[in-house]
Amino acid sequence: MGLLSEGLTQLLIPLAALVGLAFALLQWFLVSRVKVSGSYGEGNGYKDKLIGEAEEGVDSLEVTIKVAEIQNAISIGATSFLFTQYRYLSIFVGVFSAIIFLFLGSVKGFSTKSEPCTYNTGNTCKPALANALFTTIAFLLGALTSVLSGFFGMKIATYANARTTLEARRGVGKAFITAFRSGAVMGFLLAANGLLVLYITINLFKLYYGDDWEGLYESITGYGLGGSSMALFGRVGGGIYTKAADVGADLVGKVERNIPEDDPRNPAVIADNVGDNVGDIAGMGSDLFGSYAESSCAALFVASISSFGISHDYTAMSYPLIISSMGIVVCLITTLFATDLFEIKKVNEIEPSLKRQLLISTVLMTAGIAAVTFVALPSEFTLFQFGTNKAVKNWYLFFCVAIGLWAGLVIGYTTEYHTSNAYSPVQDVADSCRTGAATNVIFGLALGYKSVIIPVFAIAFAIYVSFSLAAMYGIAVAALGMLSTISTGLAIDAYGPISDNAGGIAEMAGMSHEIRERTDALDAAGNTTAAIGKGFAIGSAALVSLALFGAYVSRAGIETVDVLTPKVFIGLLVGAMLPYWFSAMTMKSVGSAALKMVEEVRRQFNTIPGLMEGTAKPDYATCVKISTDASLKEMIPPGALVMLTPLIAGTFFGVETLAGILAGSLVSGVQIAISASNTGGAWDNAKKYIEAGASEHAKSLGPKGSDPHKAAVIGDTIGDPLKDTSGPSLNILIKLMAVESLVFAPFFAAHGGVLFKWL
Amino acid sequence: MGLLSEGLTQLLIPLAALVGLAFALLQWFLVSRVKVSGSYGEGNGYKDKLIGEAEEGVDSLEVTIKVAEIQNAISIGATSFLFTQYRYLSIFVGVFSAIIFLFLGSVKGFSTKSEPCTYNTGNTCKPALANALFTTIAFLLGALTSVLSGFFGMKIATYANARTTLEARRGVGKAFITAFRSGAVMGFLLAANGLLVLYITINLFKLYYGDDWEGLYESITGYGLGGSSMALFGRVGGGIYTKAADVGADLVGKVERNIPEDDPRNPAVIADNVGDNVGDIAGMGSDLFGSYAESSCAALFVASISSFGISHDYTAMSYPLIISSMGIVVCLITTLFATDLFEIKKVNEIEPSLKRQLLISTVLMTAGIAAVTFVALPSEFTLFQFGTNKAVKNWYLFFCVAIGLWAGLVIGYTTEYHTSNAYSPVQDVADSCRTGAATNVIFGLALGYKSVIIPVFAIAFAIYVSFSLAAMYGIAVAALGMLSTISTGLAIDAYGPISDNAGGIAEMAGMSHEIRERTDALDAAGNTTAAIGKGFAIGSAALVSLALFGAYVSRAGIETVDVLTPKVFIGLLVGAMLPYWFSAMTMKSVGSAALKMVEEVRRQFNTIPGLMEGTAKPDYATCVKISTDASLKEMIPPGALVMLTPLIAGTFFGVETLAGILAGSLVSGVQIAISASNTGGAWDNAKKYIEAGASEHAKSLGPKGSDPHKAAVIGDTIGDPLKDTSGPSLNILIKLMAVESLVFAPFFAAHGGVLFKWL
Repeated sequence: MGLLSEGLTQLLIPLAALVGLAFALLQWFLVSRVKVSGSYGEGNGYKDKLIGEAEEGVDSLEVTIKVAEIQNAISIGATSFLFTQYRYLSIFVGVFSAIIFLFLGSVKGFSTKSEPCTYNTGNTCKPALANALFTTIAFLLGALTSVLSGFFGMKIATYANARTTLEARRGVGKAFITAFRSGAVMGFLLAANGLLVLYITINLFKLYYGDDWEGLYESITGYGLGGSSMALFGRVGGGIYTKAADVGADLVGKVERNIPEDDPRNPAVIADNVGDNVGDIAGMGSDLFGSYAESSCAALFVASISSFGISHDYTAMSYPLIISSMGIVVCLITTLFATDLFEIKKVNEIEPSLKRQLLISTVLMTAGIAAVTFVALPSEFTLFQFGTNKAVKNWYLFFCVAIGLWAGLVIGYTTEYHTSNAYSPVQDVADSCRTGAATNVIFGLALGYKSVIIPVFAIAFAIYVSFSLAAMYGIAVAALGMLSTISTGLAIDAYGPISDNAGGIAEMAGMSHEIRERTDALDAAGNTTAAIGKGFAIGSAALVSLALFGAYVSRAGIETVDVLTPKVFIGLLVGAMLPYWFSAMTMKSVGSAALKMVEEVRRQFNTIPGLMEGTAKPDYATCVKISTDASLKEMIPPGALVMLTPLIAGTFFGVETLAGILAGSLVSGVQIAISASNTGGAWDNAKKYIEAGASEHAKSLGPKGSDPHKAAVIGDTIGDPLKDTSGPSLNILIKLMAVESLVFAPFFAAHGGVLFKWL
Repeated sequence: MGLLSEGLTQLLIPLAALVGLAFALLQWFLVSRVKVSGSYGEGNGYKDKLIGEAEEGVDSLEVTIKVAEIQNAISIGATSFLFTQYRYLSIFVGVFSAIIFLFLGSVKGFSTKSEPCTYNTGNTCKPALANALFTTIAFLLGALTSVLSGFFGMKIATYANARTTLEARRGVGKAFITAFRSGAVMGFLLAANGLLVLYITINLFKLYYGDDWEGLYESITGYGLGGSSMALFGRVGGGIYTKAADVGADLVGKVERNIPEDDPRNPAVIADNVGDNVGDIAGMGSDLFGSYAESSCAALFVASISSFGISHDYTAMSYPLIISSMGIVVCLITTLFATDLFEIKKVNEIEPSLKRQLLISTVLMTAGIAAVTFVALPSEFTLFQFGTNKAVKNWYLFFCVAIGLWAGLVIGYTTEYHTSNAYSPVQDVADSCRTGAATNVIFGLALGYKSVIIPVFAIAFAIYVSFSLAAMYGIAVAALGMLSTISTGLAIDAYGPISDNAGGIAEMAGMSHEIRERTDALDAAGNTTAAIGKGFAIGSAALVSLALFGAYVSRAGIETVDVLTPKVFIGLLVGAMLPYWFSAMTMKSVGSAALKMVEEVRRQFNTIPGLMEGTAKPDYATCVKISTDASLKEMIPPGALVMLTPLIAGTFFGVETLAGILAGSLVSGVQIAISASNTGGAWDNAKKYIEAGASEHAKSLGPKGSDPHKAAVIGDTIGDPLKDTSGPSLNILIKLMAVESLVFAPFFAAHGGVLFKWL
């Protein structure tokens, strides 16, 4: 046993979660002190003013009212979309709950008799029917928590966007802090919420399961499945929504009508801003919550069939949750560095400040992991490794978690290098715009492909070390290590779309060029951080899926997944194809929805008199409706592809082919996901680089409206579905298929592979 | 033993090869009857004239002379480039021969003593040093044959292009037959040559090896390595050459100066046409020769350690060669259908006629395979399967070869559907040009991703069936089945660049709009057939690599490649990344070289007075030099990546990690290769669809110079490096790494994995 007693563990985990929630509330309170109403200007509690920054229009009531109006429209649009989406999802959740219950219940023919345990030999475990029921409950809880994570994130983001705009009048530093604090609200809320619900669920399930930890943690895997399946629809639906609006708005507004981005005359502009919140915020929140829930479940499941579970060492069992608890504390300290210790005075300090956040959290967390590992784990124990047991020392696990954490940092920094316009890769892409859109696209695609190299080596290194040290449990905790600083990661990530919205509101409210420049600078940094966030999401997804894959293989009773058998190899090949199929669907969906949006926007410009002159208002609602309808309709086929593949493959082709599919989609999906999101991020920032014109080189390509700028806009538009729809959805594809396979493994092992059996 | 005696086998194989050579000469003779000189017009042997087709300028001496001049310039450019390239390659070949000899010689410490055989237990085999020497010789022969295949292909293509142009004056049917016959020359030359050299090499090596068939066929694998390594540089170097010129010419000519494609005023136009011959013809010839050589080697190697080899059944051993012999005969009959039985009278008959070629050859070959299988193979035998022996019946092998053949047809037809502008996928892409280049690119990428689905299922099905029936030998002969109709496939494929060149010559020689329309129609069909050819190349490459992978695993003495071991998994992940790394390099190379070309072309337009007016001649030679220098310099890094990866991985990480890398790059590379070449083909034909304006829909998007057409040109330009450089080179990446691993397997098995050993 480790040093930490069971009682103390039972106390510390919920305490850390509550501290996280309290900190989120505090940040929210601080953001709320920026007033979005007519009374803005005095008594807002801020005394210090940024030296050298102009304060413009602080007292202009008119602007503030307009800002409040726009914020309101965005918030209503986002809320109503999410509610509509959740109505559809509730049908899916109902149907899928029934499938889970029926499939898992049928494993032992719906018998209510207790069974001998599979791993903890000699003991008696609860009936398979109970596992079916509790897995279904865990699935529902996971789905609910995921939806709440996305929803609250969206709420705080739509709450913060206008406040960031208003603060931009007081200087870039103030605006940055507002956006960053709001991101932190989301980050801490999500991490704490995820931890707390999981903790409570485990303890409630224990009331029934008692000493049957095998069944207990088997059922808990449903939590991961619930989280991730909501994330899938959140990412895909939200991604299609936001990019249909964005691409549609840009194609008519920027390209045809030559009006600026986010111009209030553009009918699709509200839909575009709503999209940022439902796609980049709510979708991403669900996604990262899913990763977190899945890696916890994978680690818990493997632990439950290892010596921790067999010997009922509660503290050691809870090691994954303790790491997450420590993560909340570390991120809390890290956040203070950004909000209180350093101050942003210049535009070019934003990116270094966000990068510093990553570094600080990683360094602090390394110490935190060391502490947690030595107090929570016994000095020696054994871990389950595909039929055998592997002897492991506690410091092995320190290295596993730490290497995941540091691999995350490497991925983050590599992503930043490839997508920030402070470095040569993006500048080269911008330079290639001189010869037109074609070379821009060629260079951008090449950049994305190249940006895969270092992350893949980092992931491979992390896998090799953690796998060698602690088998699949090592991989699972490496994933948790990468996700342990999730609150900071999410704060950085959510900052991006909030700033993007803030810029949109500034433009729509008719604020000055200077304000728009500030929000643009925030936004450019946001593109990079969004890419970093996606890098983390895909890196952790790779580790998580591998851990889930290992858990699946263990649970399905497979001892080798041999590429030299045809069943496995064809799985590998077809699995590697799935990300392409999925991307084809999502990109075509964005394209088709964007075409509809273009037609509507054109129609409004052509038929509403005075629209171009700004004397008449466009019909925003129709554009919102087009995005909503398109995303709800188009999210079904890719969703079905992901949800049905494991079911069909497992039932008809059996557990080995499914194992091949999981491995294939993992190794192939990682590459497309990273390259798609980096290519898109680079194009976006190449465009911003030309627009900002901050260097001699950039000036020679600009200004806005020049031929190179037009070429850059084309690249940016192409990048939209890559970086915000198909790319990030692929994380979920690989994770979700793995967790679904894990949940259904007992069924496939018992009844699967009917086609090959029949042949 | 089968029905066919050894003596008859020894007679029939070289006979089939000689028949193939004779048929190639006959086709060449028929093409040569079109005279490219002042004496054209009378006495050219043609009596029949196409009814309803205009005969224009048949007697115009001036045009004919101009055509001859241009052809001469292209031919000189292509020949001089290839000679320069071969000079560089000879250095590589020299160095790599030394590496092969030293690595393989060191397996048993350069001992000259005979060894006990590995598989044929109880017998004595030749020393490892002899294998090292003969592998090196086979490597040199393979390299030489590959270079000759590419070179002769280029020669006939540059011989045929002008003749096709001249025949276009006599109607589209005549032009088609000239281009197709020339393609057939290349197809038969390559197939016959490859077979003959391999046959002779085996018989010569046998003089030394005698009864040691293990060593004999182990050495023969060097032939595949030689063929494929030349193909790599041919494809990459040629691909960069052609696309640097093409993109550069288009960006200034079409986009900036608004002059037509292939306009003689464009300084890069000769380089562009040279590029078609060195890239699409010579590169592709080497590539398909490599596939053919490798699949033969893989099949022969596996057979040699199975009962065919152990019991010294020469005819059964030669089964792979007998299939190829039958393929030559079948393709010969098939060709007569295109050249003599049916006549092309209208433009829209071209594509169906080419498709019919595929179908006829497949149907005839199925019967051919059945015949060959029953006469050449004993009714029962055993095949080596990773340490065990598998009992197999001869009709199993019929199904293996036939399924490869038919999978090829499925891939060909799917490719045609996705890249021909007669069907909705390309028309949808064309339609998306209405909203600009961005939607065109999004739809094009989605189309490419989608086009992967059916080919991957076809390959997976072929793998499953052939693997289940006859283990790795089944895969190898399935690959041979797909390649058995290579002469027809190459004829169809080579037809494309020849027509492209013909169009270029027509434009440069100032021939009328009508002639140009005919060559454009030939060229549009050529884009589709080129995509089909690439589909075959990648489909067969997938099967070939898997067969080589199986042979490698057998020879390295690995019995399982278990994804659940960290060594293998990281190999899988990194292997799946390699195609991205490689594509990043090649695409960036094309981009950079194109930028240089753009600068040169702009410089010439700006500094040469009278160039735009057509009164002064551009400096073609400088553009040729830019393409040459760029391609020779830029082919080195991607070449090094491919050649060094197996050596580094095998030496430092060992045979299991290398196995993972091969599997990963295979399953990932297939997808990118197919999607890249289909996306590119679709963009090219979407553009041609708008230009041709053959339907109401197409007319609404055109004409040339309209906004949708401009958007289509951008897509076409982006597609160039995808479809002609990075996409097709990926076939070679996956094949070459596999064959190289196979050749070096004894070394890796004996001395590899030093890093893990050291840890």
